[in-house]
Amino acid sequence: MKKILVIHGPNLDLLGKRETDIYGTQTLSAINDAVTAATMAHDVQTEFFQSNHEGDIVDKIARSEVSGIIINPAAYTHTSVAIRDAIAARKDIPVVEVHLSNIYSREEFRHKSLIAPVAIGQISGFGRNSYVLGVMALLGLIDEKI
Amino acid sequence: MKKILVIHGPNLDLLGKRETDIYGTQTLSAINDAVTAATMAHDVQTEFFQSNHEGDIVDKIARSEVSGIIINPAAYTHTSVAIRDAIAARKDIPVVEVHLSNIYSREEFRHKSLIAPVAIGQISGFGRNSYVLGVMALLGLIDEKI
Amino acid sequence: MKKILVIHGPNLDLLGKRETDIYGTQTLSAINDAVTAATMAHDVQTEFFQSNHEGDIVDKIARSEVSGIIINPAAYTHTSVAIRDAIAARKDIPVVEVHLSNIYSREEFRHKSLIAPVAIGQISGFGRNSYVLGVMALLGLIDEKI
Amino acid sequence: MKKILVIHGPNLDLLGKRETDIYGTQTLSAINDAVTAATMAHDVQTEFFQSNHEGDIVDKIARSEVSGIIINPAAYTHTSVAIRDAIAARKDIPVVEVHLSNIYSREEFRHKSLIAPVAIGQISGFGRNSYVLGVMALLGLIDEKI
Amino acid sequence: MKKILVIHGPNLDLLGKRETDIYGTQTLSAINDAVTAATMAHDVQTEFFQSNHEGDIVDKIARSEVSGIIINPAAYTHTSVAIRDAIAARKDIPVVEVHLSNIYSREEFRHKSLIAPVAIGQISGFGRNSYVLGVMALLGLIDEKI
Amino acid sequence: MKKILVIHGPNLDLLGKRETDIYGTQTLSAINDAVTAATMAHDVQTEFFQSNHEGDIVDKIARSEVSGIIINPAAYTHTSVAIRDAIAARKDIPVVEVHLSNIYSREEFRHKSLIAPVAIGQISGFGRNSYVLGVMALLGLIDEKI
Amino acid sequence: MKKILVIHGPNLDLLGKRETDIYGTQTLSAINDAVTAATMAHDVQTEFFQSNHEGDIVDKIARSEVSGIIINPAAYTHTSVAIRDAIAARKDIPVVEVHLSNIYSREEFRHKSLIAPVAIGQISGFGRNSYVLGVMALLGLIDEKI
Amino acid sequence: MKKILVIHGPNLDLLGKRETDIYGTQTLSAINDAVTAATMAHDVQTEFFQSNHEGDIVDKIARSEVSGIIINPAAYTHTSVAIRDAIAARKDIPVVEVHLSNIYSREEFRHKSLIAPVAIGQISGFGRNSYVLGVMALLGLIDEKI
Amino acid sequence: MKKILVIHGPNLDLLGKRETDIYGTQTLSAINDAVTAATMAHDVQTEFFQSNHEGDIVDKIARSEVSGIIINPAAYTHTSVAIRDAIAARKDIPVVEVHLSNIYSREEFRHKSLIAPVAIGQISGFGRNSYVLGVMALLGLIDEKI
Amino acid sequence: MKKILVIHGPNLDLLGKRETDIYGTQTLSAINDAVTAATMAHDVQTEFFQSNHEGDIVDKIARSEVSGIIINPAAYTHTSVAIRDAIAARKDIPVVEVHLSNIYSREEFRHKSLIAPVAIGQISGFGRNSYVLGVMALLGLIDEKI
Amino acid sequence: MKKILVIHGPNLDLLGKRETDIYGTQTLSAINDAVTAATMAHDVQTEFFQSNHEGDIVDKIARSEVSGIIINPAAYTHTSVAIRDAIAARKDIPVVEVHLSNIYSREEFRHKSLIAPVAIGQISGFGRNSYVLGVMALLGLIDEKI
Amino acid sequence: MKKILVIHGPNLDLLGKRETDIYGTQTLSAINDAVTAATMAHDVQTEFFQSNHEGDIVDKIARSEVSGIIINPAAYTHTSVAIRDAIAARKDIPVVEVHLSNIYSREEFRHKSLIAPVAIGQISGFGRNSYVLGVMALLGLIDEKI
Repeated sequence: MKKILVIHGPNLDLLGKRETDIYGTQTLSAINDAVTAATMAHDVQTEFFQSNHEGDIVDKIARSEVSGIIINPAAYTHTSVAIRDAIAARKDIPVVEVHLSNIYSREEFRHKSLIAPVAIGQISGFGRNSYVLGVMALLGLIDEKI
Repeated sequence: MKKILVIHGPNLDLLGKRETDIYGTQTLSAINDAVTAATMAHDVQTEFFQSNHEGDIVDKIARSEVSGIIINPAAYTHTSVAIRDAIAARKDIPVVEVHLSNIYSREEFRHKSLIAPVAIGQISGFGRNSYVLGVMALLGLIDEKI
Repeated sequence: MKKILVIHGPNLDLLGKRETDIYGTQTLSAINDAVTAATMAHDVQTEFFQSNHEGDIVDKIARSEVSGIIINPAAYTHTSVAIRDAIAARKDIPVVEVHLSNIYSREEFRHKSLIAPVAIGQISGFGRNSYVLGVMALLGLIDEKI
Repeated sequence: MKKILVIHGPNLDLLGKRETDIYGTQTLSAINDAVTAATMAHDVQTEFFQSNHEGDIVDKIARSEVSGIIINPAAYTHTSVAIRDAIAARKDIPVVEVHLSNIYSREEFRHKSLIAPVAIGQISGFGRNSYVLGVMALLGLIDEKI
Repeated sequence: MKKILVIHGPNLDLLGKRETDIYGTQTLSAINDAVTAATMAHDVQTEFFQSNHEGDIVDKIARSEVSGIIINPAAYTHTSVAIRDAIAARKDIPVVEVHLSNIYSREEFRHKSLIAPVAIGQISGFGRNSYVLGVMALLGLIDEKI
Repeated sequence: MKKILVIHGPNLDLLGKRETDIYGTQTLSAINDAVTAATMAHDVQTEFFQSNHEGDIVDKIARSEVSGIIINPAAYTHTSVAIRDAIAARKDIPVVEVHLSNIYSREEFRHKSLIAPVAIGQISGFGRNSYVLGVMALLGLIDEKI
Repeated sequence: MKKILVIHGPNLDLLGKRETDIYGTQTLSAINDAVTAATMAHDVQTEFFQSNHEGDIVDKIARSEVSGIIINPAAYTHTSVAIRDAIAARKDIPVVEVHLSNIYSREEFRHKSLIAPVAIGQISGFGRNSYVLGVMALLGLIDEKI
Repeated sequence: MKKILVIHGPNLDLLGKRETDIYGTQTLSAINDAVTAATMAHDVQTEFFQSNHEGDIVDKIARSEVSGIIINPAAYTHTSVAIRDAIAARKDIPVVEVHLSNIYSREEFRHKSLIAPVAIGQISGFGRNSYVLGVMALLGLIDEKI
Repeated sequence: MKKILVIHGPNLDLLGKRETDIYGTQTLSAINDAVTAATMAHDVQTEFFQSNHEGDIVDKIARSEVSGIIINPAAYTHTSVAIRDAIAARKDIPVVEVHLSNIYSREEFRHKSLIAPVAIGQISGFGRNSYVLGVMALLGLIDEKI
Repeated sequence: MKKILVIHGPNLDLLGKRETDIYGTQTLSAINDAVTAATMAHDVQTEFFQSNHEGDIVDKIARSEVSGIIINPAAYTHTSVAIRDAIAARKDIPVVEVHLSNIYSREEFRHKSLIAPVAIGQISGFGRNSYVLGVMALLGLIDEKI
Repeated sequence: MKKILVIHGPNLDLLGKRETDIYGTQTLSAINDAVTAATMAHDVQTEFFQSNHEGDIVDKIARSEVSGIIINPAAYTHTSVAIRDAIAARKDIPVVEVHLSNIYSREEFRHKSLIAPVAIGQISGFGRNSYVLGVMALLGLIDEKI
Repeated sequence: MKKILVIHGPNLDLLGKRETDIYGTQTLSAINDAVTAATMAHDVQTEFFQSNHEGDIVDKIARSEVSGIIINPAAYTHTSVAIRDAIAARKDIPVVEVHLSNIYSREEFRHKSLIAPVAIGQISGFGRNSYVLGVMALLGLIDEKI
């Protein structure tokens, strides 16, 4: 049975807890539930991982036995060459980059993703649905490879 | 009955006709068929529009009575403030930017999208599926608004 | 009898129709009426032209038999070398650049006008009055030349 | 009775005295006369002020009881944050930036105005008429507010 | 019988009509005649196309059944990714970029050609002869391929 | 009873131990003592935290139940968007950025703080006293809010 | 008896008089009173100086017989090499730079201080308290030197 | 007996396991063996440390009682000011930077090393031998100091 | 009898000798033969000169009694102001810049030619034919002057 | 009888009074004496002017009846467009820029002189002798014009 | 018998003769002796070449029949595309770049090596040992190829 | 008896021979005569050296037994790190940089001198007199040292 790994980057554990006026009251587990629901019809297992630690995310990418990864690198999108290299080393599986918000309508420094050039593709700006669309994209890519 | 407009930017009419070694043998109408298929279960009509003319795309965005737009601005992604302004003027409907290829792993000048800051979100790198995912994103956004 | 050509660039046909909360309910024809009114006391004819097409604007500039041009290049202000070259080729008549809004208090990329170095002068930030002042400037320039 | 303040920045006292081959033989007082003439039909008083001192111009802007300001910041256009801040603090009245020459067809460093983003609008390139048009713009703005 | 397409970009229809003091009194049709003369000794047909419309030039490049293209993109040299992409898609035939003037001795923004990296080669600065040399280069390239 | 969290970034544990010729022989605990002394007269508790790990600092900021934070982000000042985002998410409490040395008189790359735009204010250059002044600033801010 | 000089840069005389919605109703003399209050317990005299003139501020820095200077250079923070050089020449006394607002969360051009590299330290973002903290920092520095 | 610390940065634990087509089948322990072999003739002990965590590497550098360090900072070469500061604080021992690949023939962002200015020297491009040469360089430096 | 000087810059003596897989087996003398052949029908003598020395090329340009120069500056295209100045001093004769390869499709630093602004024109990308076309261009220019 | 004006910019009145360890104990009047001595053999009067005020220096340049000016703009070298414009307006007399120190071996921002492009020439780095050489240069220029 | 060529760039002939306080009293021939010593155990001949002439170094690289090159390009590291091209043309043998000093801790312009991208690897910062390590690296590379 | 070396950089041998409309009819030997005349009253010998070869100039600087050097590096001013390094190595004697024209009023790339930071001082813009003033500056410096 195939497994998909969903990685949430730094500060995403705060979703629905802080700044609810901006990010809404939806928590990270609600996002995870939406992802799980989206995989229902497919014979796919999901694993969720959140960390504020760049090194832990690198470890996780490198050491997971999965068929594909969805990653929202959050702040590390713009600063982590280590995560970029870890993804680049996973040529064996597709990696999809997702963002809750449209990073291109935020501060200048958020317009540049170090991750994008090594991911298969990028989905940004659809809130929780960025993840759901990411799962669909990933399933399409995994199926194509089989 | 709701209608979705799908806009294909310059040179996309060549898909499957030229450079088939790079872009594959899939034609633009095959992409359109995939989009139509994806809207099947929804009570949604689709209109397709391809043009190599910046002005025609601006006209189309401004004058279409639709519930949402999916646009692959292709080359105009990086050069057209006119299309950006046309999209920005359509605050009444969601506009989703899609790209067949991962624009962030191509030439430096393709990394910057003038369109992204005024679109709801962006999906890039999944080939035909970028459009299909775009439709799903759009349907989700349209439904939310109803 | 002298004739003045007034060129409105892309998306200006939407004035008073979309985003009325921002740009007000004044339509393009209201602006045209104000321009006509301003030329009343002078023996001057006015022609109005709006297009979303860069090429059409180039054509119009090159082929019009007029004594002066007022142009609001809108989005093409920042991207069109073709319109710049068309204006530069009209050394026989004065060309005045106008903008409804103050382009210098908007996004960074709007601060740079490719048109300004080849126009006689620039007027920006006075809404409809930018055009009216432009007519006055143009009439002054035309008269000086007679 | 309303009063308009006209500020002439550094070196403008030399107009018509030096470099008459470039700037013509028209003196600053001739410009002032043209401004006064333009206000004739309106119930408006004009005050003229020229200084080569950045601080004096800041003082003048801050301390004048007037209904509107026309300023040609000359060299300080490109270097004075102090004058910018002084103008920004005058939210109670409209301030119009004018230039005799087209600053966008001169040296690169003159293309950037620190003043423009905080002025209502900008008029450049029409010689003495830049001031006359500025007065008209200002009168329109003052009237709108009444 | 082989056919060569010669594309003249925006404002080139004005050659010999405006600014004759700068560009001389030679018209575009005189250039076309020189090109035709240069192909005399070869069994080659020539087609000439001038447009101020970026989209028309893209259409022409994409849809022409020819053995080679000579293009003077004029203003679009510096702004059109769409024309670049259209040329890049014509890997089946050689495309030669020509310029009447030496673009490297003009304004800074004219030093950068978006077209050059995807053309076979570039010839600039020889006036009408840039086209004639372009034809010779093209014939050499076409012959090599046969 | 209110609590203040004092965060020391990477390498600050070495104070007074290495490079004593530069940074003096004062240890981190001496700084902590000075902070505690400064809070004496106020009914305020202090917690001290030092880490070389970006993720640990993010965790600490996000999960601490405190009334205000003083942070010396040290090297992470210039590289951590994650810490910036963590601070931005703490809109409920004031965060003050402090630096022992004057970062603006050191290497160019140290002049840019990613943290400064989201902190309430910044104090740099006063050695141990930067912290003491930070506490005073923080107490002032906390009191204002009560 | 020691004396501290407090220098207020351009436009600060307007505090509490203009834009009270932004800067509050607190006047410059209220800030001065707070500074005086902060020096109460110390045997220190304070002198206050406000000017909109760069040259006057340079004169004041150069010619004052004081034990330390607190300066809020306001707009001159970003443009005055003359004030920088004047401060650099006062190696005999400590100079502290203060700002009412957090200059790092304002426009890009305000992020760069020409003064910071030559001041002992910088305090920004704490409103009136920036001055009070500046006094404390200065007293600490003066005492250390005795 | 002297000890040398060899630090391997993020993703280097994957050597010989992933992307063997690029990096070869040689594992990290094979590199370590080569380093150990190179120290054979010298009375020197070696300690090896690999981590994907920036903070762990900072800790290790700060807290190790060794006579010299060889570090391949991998991705952190380009992003870690914290590791730079940690190395700069080790003025008591020589630190040598090594890279398996020639970082100057890779992506632009890899050409800039934040570590290089604070290391004694840098060796890059010799694969496993970069480490072996690094050991030799280090032994030379250590001996010189004795 | 007129004479044309053909200058080959650094490393061009290696043509056909090294890297034959890239540059082909055609030697520099074969290029020279093609140039001579192209001048057959004209009453023109040719002189060939190759040097790896910037100074020698400057000497040659300055001291040759010729009617025109064709120069392939190779590496010095991008670094030699001395050769630029030498060419600029030869206003008495036309100088044509040629390149074997299309320098605009190579590394970024090769896109900028210091020579181009002072040459009459530039031909690049046609291999040996770049020289042949250069000769034709030069003959046209020399004839025009007679 | 001819007169030369010597202008000393901001902070130069401190020479020999502050930072004597750096700038030596030579005062400004000693420099003036050296200048006067250098003009002895010539029938030339000298006027000396020092000011910390940009506006005063502009006034002085504009209003002085002299045959030539020597100016050490000090800090205003790098920030004053107003002084640049004032000098540019003095096309009737030669203006020589001098600097005590070699501004090209100091901070990066001192390498750029706004004054240099409009002065006749520049002399920097010779201490007091920069002025003396400036006088000689000026006398040479004045004599040439007679 | 294999031969290694050691190239010393401009000004290296001065080693040990000038600025002995900085570079020490060790002469270039002492470095050469150390290189020779390092090759003792190997059946390898060494040739040494020093020149201040860019062209001579290009000649030497192109025309030497050797098994590998060690080059310290000194000043030409940062300015010579000609030497870069010469090295790039020697794909038949390994070329190693060495530097006596750590170029990354010197002036900004020395951080960029034009040579590094085409060399096999780079060694910098170890003084004479940079050469010795370079020989070892080269011998390793040569042996691998046999 | 002291000797001064005067170095003329590339293309200066053409003075008075080419482009006499720009540079005048004065030859290099006339400049040399003026230099000699200027040293008359002093017990100083002069040696003149002109070369178009960077390496020759480096050699000359390094190997000359002189008391001071005047150098007009011409084109090498902007490109030669080798000459810079050669001058920097001559800490034993003063080196003065001179330019005939005002390099700051010419093309942008001529505003940056690589030589200036290592020369004692720079004199530019006085034609032949730049050399004469350079001699005077040098004699002053040499005398000071005695």
